[in-house]
Amino acid sequence: MTRPLLIAPSILAADFAKLGDEVRAIDAAGADWVHVDIMDGHFVPNISFGPDVMKSVRAASKKVFDVHLMISPADPYLEAFAKAGADIITVHVEAGPHLHRSLQAIRALGKKAGVVMNPGTPASSIESVIDMVDLVLVMSVNPGFGGQAFIPSALDKIRAIRAMIGGRPIDLEVDGGVTAANAADVVRAGANVLVAGSAVFKGGQYKENIAAIRNAGAIARGEAA
Amino acid sequence: MTRPLLIAPSILAADFAKLGDEVRAIDAAGADWVHVDIMDGHFVPNISFGPDVMKSVRAASKKVFDVHLMISPADPYLEAFAKAGADIITVHVEAGPHLHRSLQAIRALGKKAGVVMNPGTPASSIESVIDMVDLVLVMSVNPGFGGQAFIPSALDKIRAIRAMIGGRPIDLEVDGGVTAANAADVVRAGANVLVAGSAVFKGGQYKENIAAIRNAGAIARGEAA
Amino acid sequence: MTRPLLIAPSILAADFAKLGDEVRAIDAAGADWVHVDIMDGHFVPNISFGPDVMKSVRAASKKVFDVHLMISPADPYLEAFAKAGADIITVHVEAGPHLHRSLQAIRALGKKAGVVMNPGTPASSIESVIDMVDLVLVMSVNPGFGGQAFIPSALDKIRAIRAMIGGRPIDLEVDGGVTAANAADVVRAGANVLVAGSAVFKGGQYKENIAAIRNAGAIARGEAA
Amino acid sequence: MTRPLLIAPSILAADFAKLGDEVRAIDAAGADWVHVDIMDGHFVPNISFGPDVMKSVRAASKKVFDVHLMISPADPYLEAFAKAGADIITVHVEAGPHLHRSLQAIRALGKKAGVVMNPGTPASSIESVIDMVDLVLVMSVNPGFGGQAFIPSALDKIRAIRAMIGGRPIDLEVDGGVTAANAADVVRAGANVLVAGSAVFKGGQYKENIAAIRNAGAIARGEAA
Amino acid sequence: MTRPLLIAPSILAADFAKLGDEVRAIDAAGADWVHVDIMDGHFVPNISFGPDVMKSVRAASKKVFDVHLMISPADPYLEAFAKAGADIITVHVEAGPHLHRSLQAIRALGKKAGVVMNPGTPASSIESVIDMVDLVLVMSVNPGFGGQAFIPSALDKIRAIRAMIGGRPIDLEVDGGVTAANAADVVRAGANVLVAGSAVFKGGQYKENIAAIRNAGAIARGEAA
Amino acid sequence: MTRPLLIAPSILAADFAKLGDEVRAIDAAGADWVHVDIMDGHFVPNISFGPDVMKSVRAASKKVFDVHLMISPADPYLEAFAKAGADIITVHVEAGPHLHRSLQAIRALGKKAGVVMNPGTPASSIESVIDMVDLVLVMSVNPGFGGQAFIPSALDKIRAIRAMIGGRPIDLEVDGGVTAANAADVVRAGANVLVAGSAVFKGGQYKENIAAIRNAGAIARGEAA
Repeated sequence: MTRPLLIAPSILAADFAKLGDEVRAIDAAGADWVHVDIMDGHFVPNISFGPDVMKSVRAASKKVFDVHLMISPADPYLEAFAKAGADIITVHVEAGPHLHRSLQAIRALGKKAGVVMNPGTPASSIESVIDMVDLVLVMSVNPGFGGQAFIPSALDKIRAIRAMIGGRPIDLEVDGGVTAANAADVVRAGANVLVAGSAVFKGGQYKENIAAIRNAGAIARGEAA
Repeated sequence: MTRPLLIAPSILAADFAKLGDEVRAIDAAGADWVHVDIMDGHFVPNISFGPDVMKSVRAASKKVFDVHLMISPADPYLEAFAKAGADIITVHVEAGPHLHRSLQAIRALGKKAGVVMNPGTPASSIESVIDMVDLVLVMSVNPGFGGQAFIPSALDKIRAIRAMIGGRPIDLEVDGGVTAANAADVVRAGANVLVAGSAVFKGGQYKENIAAIRNAGAIARGEAA
Repeated sequence: MTRPLLIAPSILAADFAKLGDEVRAIDAAGADWVHVDIMDGHFVPNISFGPDVMKSVRAASKKVFDVHLMISPADPYLEAFAKAGADIITVHVEAGPHLHRSLQAIRALGKKAGVVMNPGTPASSIESVIDMVDLVLVMSVNPGFGGQAFIPSALDKIRAIRAMIGGRPIDLEVDGGVTAANAADVVRAGANVLVAGSAVFKGGQYKENIAAIRNAGAIARGEAA
Repeated sequence: MTRPLLIAPSILAADFAKLGDEVRAIDAAGADWVHVDIMDGHFVPNISFGPDVMKSVRAASKKVFDVHLMISPADPYLEAFAKAGADIITVHVEAGPHLHRSLQAIRALGKKAGVVMNPGTPASSIESVIDMVDLVLVMSVNPGFGGQAFIPSALDKIRAIRAMIGGRPIDLEVDGGVTAANAADVVRAGANVLVAGSAVFKGGQYKENIAAIRNAGAIARGEAA
Repeated sequence: MTRPLLIAPSILAADFAKLGDEVRAIDAAGADWVHVDIMDGHFVPNISFGPDVMKSVRAASKKVFDVHLMISPADPYLEAFAKAGADIITVHVEAGPHLHRSLQAIRALGKKAGVVMNPGTPASSIESVIDMVDLVLVMSVNPGFGGQAFIPSALDKIRAIRAMIGGRPIDLEVDGGVTAANAADVVRAGANVLVAGSAVFKGGQYKENIAAIRNAGAIARGEAA
Repeated sequence: MTRPLLIAPSILAADFAKLGDEVRAIDAAGADWVHVDIMDGHFVPNISFGPDVMKSVRAASKKVFDVHLMISPADPYLEAFAKAGADIITVHVEAGPHLHRSLQAIRALGKKAGVVMNPGTPASSIESVIDMVDLVLVMSVNPGFGGQAFIPSALDKIRAIRAMIGGRPIDLEVDGGVTAANAADVVRAGANVLVAGSAVFKGGQYKENIAAIRNAGAIARGEAA
């Protein structure tokens, strides 16, 4: 069964001075998921925020909170993010030697488990965990900063992972430089969850921005936009 | 010349969903400085937030932004915090082998430089940098989480550092479990900058809370409260 | 030529208060190899024991000592385990960037060299060292603790590595949750060395326990049990 | 009040093949405490054993189990050693930036807390934790291996720490190369707990060996031997 | 279009007391590129030299300077090597989680970007960066020291990468134990750039040595030697 | 007995393209020692060179080779530098938890052992090793790069260490920004070995430059210049 098309605005591009309002606004504007980027300044060269900031906005929306951990090691913080209200917790294949253990731990916490690869990491790196994930996230920029341009070779990786997923009920998410202009390509390659930061928050027209990305994706899927 | 008594609310205890409002509120409530706690999940077992969150609230107040870096290594992030609007940047003596270099770097960025010790670290650890700092911060709890109780042995350390400072124009700041109930002790031991988190933000009465801490300190200094 | 079916009890499940007796007991009970699990508390979240403990029991049996190093980096300790009496030394593909160097070093010490993968690591990770190993170990639990349940997807990996081995004289070993109940599946997938901890030591009936695992495996191989 | 003279044989020098018997034997031979050396192969260049090995011998003696953690970081393993039956847990001042937090954690587990310094670390390094420890351990060899010779300059450090302790109810323990020949010097310098490995286990005459060390120490204290 | 056959002497085998003369000598002797091996004592167990040493010999030759970074992390030093005069900068796939970012950074510095694998690392590890490199380097010894013997299984990896490159304008370089005796095999497997250290510098006959390697390679390509 | 005044040019400021010539030139120009700065790009943010480069110039002079290891950990490389011809090997107090072990190891290699502090590290950090060193090196710049200005507070540290040394036969060396203009201050504070880089190599007049520093120092000691 085909997974639905979902738009997941990343609050990395929000105004951190009023994060509760921002989350309410993207919820009202039609976001399917709230995408949360956690950076520790070690796995990636930037610090964004941690579990307490995330927890503070959890009450602002009932949408799915989709937490992307750009941290290493991840295991010591899995419980904190589960308690902070994450619905999906996604860990990097490059974050340590025990990827399977991290995914086990996320599921043992009652959350959905995702795995994510950096742009330079081959699709084959997740072969041994494909049976135990709810989501695969393909990075189409190098993680750490918002506002970067989409790396075109990510499309090949999306296709490879779409094939690896086969009929499994796994969401295929893409993060990095996704806009209304390239959403169709991303969807055609096989993704069904589109993360967007600047493309959603730019100009303050969240509703129009989300709709534009969704429409581009929907048309590519042959769905009524 | 005696340094003035200053109250520095820590926004670690604020509501992160409306951080701009919180900073405006403590500014209006009489805060002298805005104390910003940065945690990377490696030097301390918690991630708070990084330069972009801090930058987002910089416009909310013209008060001094006093940034305590609980990160290691610190050097790769000094410039980001300077650009984000820090006025004072404080680094841990335990954060690496090159403390003097970090302090040089902060000053080269045009900012005031502070040094901070964990509760288990002796006062003598800062002897070789006392001539190049604008602030010494004594931790009276183990850094990483708000809401902990003041460690009484910090008073001895405050006294030792007050003696080491002598007549130098250096602020002596204390962070961890400071309340109106112990502010007098802390001030009598020699501190002039009091960080307070829960004690300021509790009950929503920021103005009264700040005033209570300030009054306790002022009386201990023999100043009109 | 087909490799023989071998049962390798892991002394991780033995009574550490009388390790010499335990090793003598499993030897007498029919163990083919003595499997030794070394954990450093860094590569895996547990410390088991090191070369001196292993050396103390070397005299208790003339069987093959099969040492699985769950440590990183491994190279500084290879010589110590060789001197302690290891016959086979197995290193993790995830333990560092220089897997080939570690295997070269083990062989230069006159020992058999093994490579092992965590459950989340793809079979393809060992392609470039398959020509220089005597043993491939597939983890069917996440390493660090005894008593965990067998991860079923390990069977696919065993099959993939069996195909990769082809006609090379390489033992294919499986470790984690192996019991008499699943030994046939493991053997049918292509493994010829079965590590078992709790399944051997439970109830104190080492001989019966080893026989049960061996029989299950032998039947799957079409051998007289 | 003076702390009693105590002899703490280190099981690092025991026969690991029959650790239960060895612990029973030193208990019967008059050991006051059982000293347990935990090494992780990272903080020190050797791996000894971890919590499960220690737990296996806990039942062999009702004496105080005095656990010296030569591991870094220590915090992730404190609970495991508490559960394994440690009475005293001692952490290295060099093991990380948060010494005070580790000691707090040990006490929160209901155990006695010790702090230990390497031979090259000055006595002043523990000044800020002297009020929260039950034991100070002075290393008189570089930790990692048994059988090394006593470093004479440790005597000065013992004297310095004895002075720092003053009237506090803190045990002062010495570990490394302690024998009947130098026990008097060590005791005169101010130590009251003597760890001995080879000097206790040599020749199999545990009772005589312990008595010889104890007598030398007792005479130095002016006590009836 | 076929890439030309190139000989790249590694100055790791030169006399470091007169590095300028050595570089001039290999330039005059017909070297196509100057191969520079940078080791940090952490990624590999040897320290060779850094950007300042390299810069000091940059003026000695106008040939291409081909810099192989055996360092981790690489990113903090990319700019220093670009400024020191590198033309090609090659980073290890094992050097960290952000390979794509390092290659982006090298190109952003206006330099050609290379990727290199250790002998134990599979060819598939570079699949996701093959579209953004100018050079792939296959290690045929474990990096760290000169004078080692060629690992024969490198030939399979060269063939695999030659196939992966297809028609892309990418140089395929081999480093480790390459001599006139095996150059033909290496070239036939698909390499076009041959690094040689001892084989070039031995006996002081740089011109003859380079010619011998080149001729062996040229004949294997069916080119007039 | 007073230690002689010695000038130790640092070859960090030499022309690396002709290091043999440079060493011969400073030897002929009157250098007492050849000071060698080893940087690994991890302990300090620069890579200079390692044991093989040092070995290549050992034959160029019979003077004392005084090797300052700005590397961490140091122990794995001590033997390589001893074999490369070092006479004195100096390790950083900040380089790891086992300073005493490193110094023991240097002496066991038959070499003189030195200890060095960064500018931010207090003099008291070496109290427990003062009895086992042949040399104490005070850094008067933050290590990593040549050409920095002398940090005046180093004079206090020199005085403190001079007092700690007392009558012991230990050389007291200063490195960083030493010139003919400040040599007298440095000598008066108690140093007897002056490292100089740029101040020796500038203008190519090595003999005059060395003489100028020596004369300034000698006058301060009341010796005939």
